[in-house]
Amino acid sequence: MEELVRRIQNDGNVLSEGVLKVDRFITHQVDPVLMEQIGARLAEVFAEKNITKVVTIESSGIAPAIYTAQSLATPMIFARKEKSLTMDEELLTSSVYSFTKQLASTISISRKFLNEQDHVLIVDDFLANGQAAKGLIELCQQAGAQVEGIGIVIEKSFQIGRQLLEDMDVPVVSLARIDSLEEGKVSFRQADA
Amino acid sequence: MEELVRRIQNDGNVLSEGVLKVDRFITHQVDPVLMEQIGARLAEVFAEKNITKVVTIESSGIAPAIYTAQSLATPMIFARKEKSLTMDEELLTSSVYSFTKQLASTISISRKFLNEQDHVLIVDDFLANGQAAKGLIELCQQAGAQVEGIGIVIEKSFQIGRQLLEDMDVPVVSLARIDSLEEGKVSFRQADA
Repeated sequence: MEELVRRIQNDGNVLSEGVLKVDRFITHQVDPVLMEQIGARLAEVFAEKNITKVVTIESSGIAPAIYTAQSLATPMIFARKEKSLTMDEELLTSSVYSFTKQLASTISISRKFLNEQDHVLIVDDFLANGQAAKGLIELCQQAGAQVEGIGIVIEKSFQIGRQLLEDMDVPVVSLARIDSLEEGKVSFRQADA
Repeated sequence: MEELVRRIQNDGNVLSEGVLKVDRFITHQVDPVLMEQIGARLAEVFAEKNITKVVTIESSGIAPAIYTAQSLATPMIFARKEKSLTMDEELLTSSVYSFTKQLASTISISRKFLNEQDHVLIVDDFLANGQAAKGLIELCQQAGAQVEGIGIVIEKSFQIGRQLLEDMDVPVVSLARIDSLEEGKVSFRQADA
């Protein structure tokens, strides 16, 4: 997605060889116009998949996911990282390991929102090690829902996430793919859409 | 907002005299169509205020806030409850006390995103004790930004939040106002918009 690539070039900051900061338009301050374009593009790519639910994880996945859901005319569900005080009913849960924090955390979705009739599109802002997306796939599998694909805003293609998800037989579509962050510079490869 | 009131009546669940659960369309599963209507309505109410930034707090404030920001043609900023690993620079921080959890937590926004030129609209999904909104106002004040108003999706009018915010001289506009949750029933009062 050219507009996204341009935006990363203009407003992204390379903090290290592993870390790209996009807090000016995605992860902290958020540009609604760009998010709507991202949502429309992901919806277009998965238009033939009869998606019934868009699933993401709080917090920075919510903006791209809600616009994708709107374009697909489905609800959006965000998995919780902490149990909410009003989550009183049965939960789908999964463990997500964070390499940066070096600890595992539990993510959850209320069971009532996903079932074996559902065709799910998972949306997230970043794909790096793939642990969050893998956790979301596991939640969907527990519910018997079919994961039709994963829509990613920015993929760090030099990390293992994409391979991990493709090994689970889930199609991955990334709107920007980054080959390297070496020498303080973002090098892109051809995006999926 | 009539559509919102109808939706609360149809899909809300009263868990106790203090707790209304709206996880079917706002706080966990999210309806993008309703969120867009909410955003459009809040933007309309504050249209004359020359808003430059919409500010909310993760996670369930993000969906109504992004649509409000889109309608006002401004960026949206969500305050973080936990420090992000890539938040390396100067932060605006504030302490928010949770009556339910009985503990204080720190919320933050990067200082670079708010300054004395800004006219801020704060948006959140719930107003109860007003502690989160008060924390967001304090962040804006630290930056010298002017808080022009607070747009709330659901106000629990039997709790002290609204009074607290009005005592800070900030106009509050709530799209649904709840008088009581007694006897398992939602009683509304006239909403602000």
